Amino acid sequence: MKLTGQNFLGNQLSSQEDKKFNAIDPTRGEKLTPDFMEATVQEVDEAARMAAVAFKEYRKTDASQRADFLECIAQEIEKVGEALIQRCHQETGLPEARISGERGRTTNQLRLFAGLLREGSWVNARIDTSDPDRKPIPKPDVRTIQIALGPVGVFGASNFPLAFSVAGGDTASALAAGCPVVVKAHPAHPGTSELVGIAIRNAILECNMPDGTFSMVHGKSNEVGLAIVKNKYIKAIGFTGSFKGGKALYDAASGREEPIPVYAEMGSVNPVFVLPGAMKAKSTEIAEGLTASITLGAGQFCTNPGLVITEDNHSKEAFYKELSESVSKTEAGTMLTESIQQAYDLARNNLLDQPGVQQIAMGKEGNRGFMGKASVYQVNSPDFLRNDGLEEEVFGPSSLLVSAKDNQDLISIASKMKGHLTASLFGLEEELDNYKDLILILEQKVGRLIINGFPTGVEVCHAMNHGGPFPATTDSRSTSVGTASIYRFTRPICYQNFPDHLLPEELQQANPLKVWRLYNGEWSK
Amino acid sequence: MKLTGQNFLGNQLSSQEDKKFNAIDPTRGEKLTPDFMEATVQEVDEAARMAAVAFKEYRKTDASQRADFLECIAQEIEKVGEALIQRCHQETGLPEARISGERGRTTNQLRLFAGLLREGSWVNARIDTSDPDRKPIPKPDVRTIQIALGPVGVFGASNFPLAFSVAGGDTASALAAGCPVVVKAHPAHPGTSELVGIAIRNAILECNMPDGTFSMVHGKSNEVGLAIVKNKYIKAIGFTGSFKGGKALYDAASGREEPIPVYAEMGSVNPVFVLPGAMKAKSTEIAEGLTASITLGAGQFCTNPGLVITEDNHSKEAFYKELSESVSKTEAGTMLTESIQQAYDLARNNLLDQPGVQQIAMGKEGNRGFMGKASVYQVNSPDFLRNDGLEEEVFGPSSLLVSAKDNQDLISIASKMKGHLTASLFGLEEELDNYKDLILILEQKVGRLIINGFPTGVEVCHAMNHGGPFPATTDSRSTSVGTASIYRFTRPICYQNFPDHLLPEELQQANPLKVWRLYNGEWSK
Repeated sequence: MKLTGQNFLGNQLSSQEDKKFNAIDPTRGEKLTPDFMEATVQEVDEAARMAAVAFKEYRKTDASQRADFLECIAQEIEKVGEALIQRCHQETGLPEARISGERGRTTNQLRLFAGLLREGSWVNARIDTSDPDRKPIPKPDVRTIQIALGPVGVFGASNFPLAFSVAGGDTASALAAGCPVVVKAHPAHPGTSELVGIAIRNAILECNMPDGTFSMVHGKSNEVGLAIVKNKYIKAIGFTGSFKGGKALYDAASGREEPIPVYAEMGSVNPVFVLPGAMKAKSTEIAEGLTASITLGAGQFCTNPGLVITEDNHSKEAFYKELSESVSKTEAGTMLTESIQQAYDLARNNLLDQPGVQQIAMGKEGNRGFMGKASVYQVNSPDFLRNDGLEEEVFGPSSLLVSAKDNQDLISIASKMKGHLTASLFGLEEELDNYKDLILILEQKVGRLIINGFPTGVEVCHAMNHGGPFPATTDSRSTSVGTASIYRFTRPICYQNFPDHLLPEELQQANPLKVWRLYNGEWSK
Repeated sequence: MKLTGQNFLGNQLSSQEDKKFNAIDPTRGEKLTPDFMEATVQEVDEAARMAAVAFKEYRKTDASQRADFLECIAQEIEKVGEALIQRCHQETGLPEARISGERGRTTNQLRLFAGLLREGSWVNARIDTSDPDRKPIPKPDVRTIQIALGPVGVFGASNFPLAFSVAGGDTASALAAGCPVVVKAHPAHPGTSELVGIAIRNAILECNMPDGTFSMVHGKSNEVGLAIVKNKYIKAIGFTGSFKGGKALYDAASGREEPIPVYAEMGSVNPVFVLPGAMKAKSTEIAEGLTASITLGAGQFCTNPGLVITEDNHSKEAFYKELSESVSKTEAGTMLTESIQQAYDLARNNLLDQPGVQQIAMGKEGNRGFMGKASVYQVNSPDFLRNDGLEEEVFGPSSLLVSAKDNQDLISIASKMKGHLTASLFGLEEELDNYKDLILILEQKVGRLIINGFPTGVEVCHAMNHGGPFPATTDSRSTSVGTASIYRFTRPICYQNFPDHLLPEELQQANPLKVWRLYNGEWSK
């Protein structure tokens, strides 16, 4: 399939201006063809306008039509075949097996949402029936479901070129909800984005969805992204990326004449607490698992464990030693872009400049392209507690070990923390009971708590919560992974005293779609 | 009960500064005793700090303890007895019967949330069980529920001195969720606020809830309110009031270092569409009902019908005449404050200055205090469509009739509208089917759609949605009335691979509390 490098305004290709950029192969630092055409603000505005027009029709599609559409996108992505894997590998340097796995996750996600739509209960139907005889005034019939918010701006993430990009979780959940999307393709993998964009366009044509349901614009500058956020037709934003990027979008969105929600997942350091008993009894297992989690995907995961907190006792030294040995043996990994790699090296050097921080292990050197080598540092709790900067994410295969004096000191460290996506606790069964206070504190700090497991690897399911208090995200009330992520792009609409046949099917008295409903306060179907 | 005029910092009275104000009896324009002490920023900060400390304990209370507490507040409010009705009447000019009804609504709301807590399913438990044999990686056990966000700032509303004030819907839902509250008492009814504040404090002492779970500060200036919003311990805001007030709080909250959600319900004009058949067949009934809805509570409801849209046909004249006659007979009503009454008169005068706007009826003159007289205006659709200002709320017993040329023109008017809380349609059964397009458009504009009913009167139940797209609210994803309002003050927390006994009871495998749960994608209990 030949790439054009153009923007998709609905089903049409467009390139109004001659401002170009290229993808770079991070394993060699070389430019890849073709040129990609930076979108103009006019092109962004046209994409958003088309989305608003398409929305009028798209929101009227029934759930099974949208389910067909999502499944069709999945099939079309699979049809791209090896070309997608190859291009994605060229642009990201990620191993082919990883990309292939991520493609599976992407198509599974689309199919999961298709299943959610077919089952139908996600609309969260709430019904309170009338009581005409109630005194002093009759009780009305009141029925509420979730409906689509409107066109959604989706920002592709560099570190998940498929699962959090053009047809990733944000797009899948927005399309499932009934919202057209305007995607800002990530400039680090524009070819991968175009291939997936073509797949979506094919699905639109095949399923006869309105033109404008999907648009995709390219851009290396911030202007293209800001133009999406500021466009009046855009009603919500999905973003995964850096704190700086996400916060800038949030500020732009809340400064609009009509403010809109921004769901920005901005990463975190995902503290891992290794309790004394576990550190002693499972030293090797935890050290090796931690090394794998720290270096997975060259550490370029939002759930990368960037902070490991232990108590200062006689088994600490052995644990540190095992971890050091394990990290030292690790090969360097290719990072996604030159700027990510440079930022990683800068952040590591900066870490060494901080009072009390020492390097305790370093992985193998890279030999070509933008490689990041694994690295582990340590600091004592007084130095950590004094230095807010040590809680900031170092994006890459690095982790900082913090040594707490005792249980109380551990609690102090946890209490001081800002918002993160996850926190993990390694502990023996009997030991965990002594750390209930720690768990209570961590509940206030994160979106997901894990016992005896590593934070990397986010299960896509109904019960997942991938989110957390600021600064991990700009909206701790939402998840960006799992079926509940659909609610980011919906709002309730209430029908009072409606004739049955004018109600959405999910709210009709006979419940023709047999969905679960909160009927006079009880779930039934 | 003797009023002190002081602020409540937790259970303690406080007045650090000698800046005072008084409640005014709006039926006479006279000051009421005692003096009320404006809170300082230091007092606000202390209240918020105490709330944060109390939160650590309060969030650990179990649902039945919080239910007891809410019921105790309801009882304590009832115990204040006639003194509450009298003081509230003096401060607001609202009729005693209305205040007594509103007290019933307030205590019912508290008891409704108590019931919600005892039933327990509101936590929205989602469970996906593990599959250790899944390939390529085992599926973890993932469980999520809603937990409290943290201390909430609640702003009392002038127009609901009980039901949307100190112990109103925002406070009830926040306390139910597990969040302490810092209430900004509305300066138009500070004595009523103190009486209710004492009731809450009594309930705190009686139920042994942590000191700081409830604080209340007085203030006539904006500074006190802004100090609440900007305080780092405050994690969400509930507000009902003007667009200007709500938007200022939203801007302050989104400009914080850690932005927080603001649920500001900022009113609307609640368009009422009277379709031709209904206008002909039910002219008298609709005209009289509309008059009652427009003038209810001197028009001081967020759901007041400020816009009535009809098609231009031969029955219009008769309908306008009936409405005019009905409105002309209406007594003037005492408005809540002098500034509300002045703003109402100003807005009415301003309306008459707009091109094409004519007055068609005026209610009886008031004879004492801050009275607002009913008034109805008309404008043709071209003048309406040209003038954005005509869609702005005139807070008071006033409505603007817009005459559309035909069905298509009606659609144009609806399409141009901004966000509102409600829209109502009056139509004959067969007629409504011809207006499905109108319904589809209105779904995008409002939070609640009503057929053959008036917007005033908001049922407190599970299925209610009192909200709507901006500028009706700052967060269309939420409701401020009904049990779903509790979700404004919660967020999800996910537990992965947790030992059963460390999970909250609602997530434990045996489901000891017998709550409804989404278990592997199906609701069960």
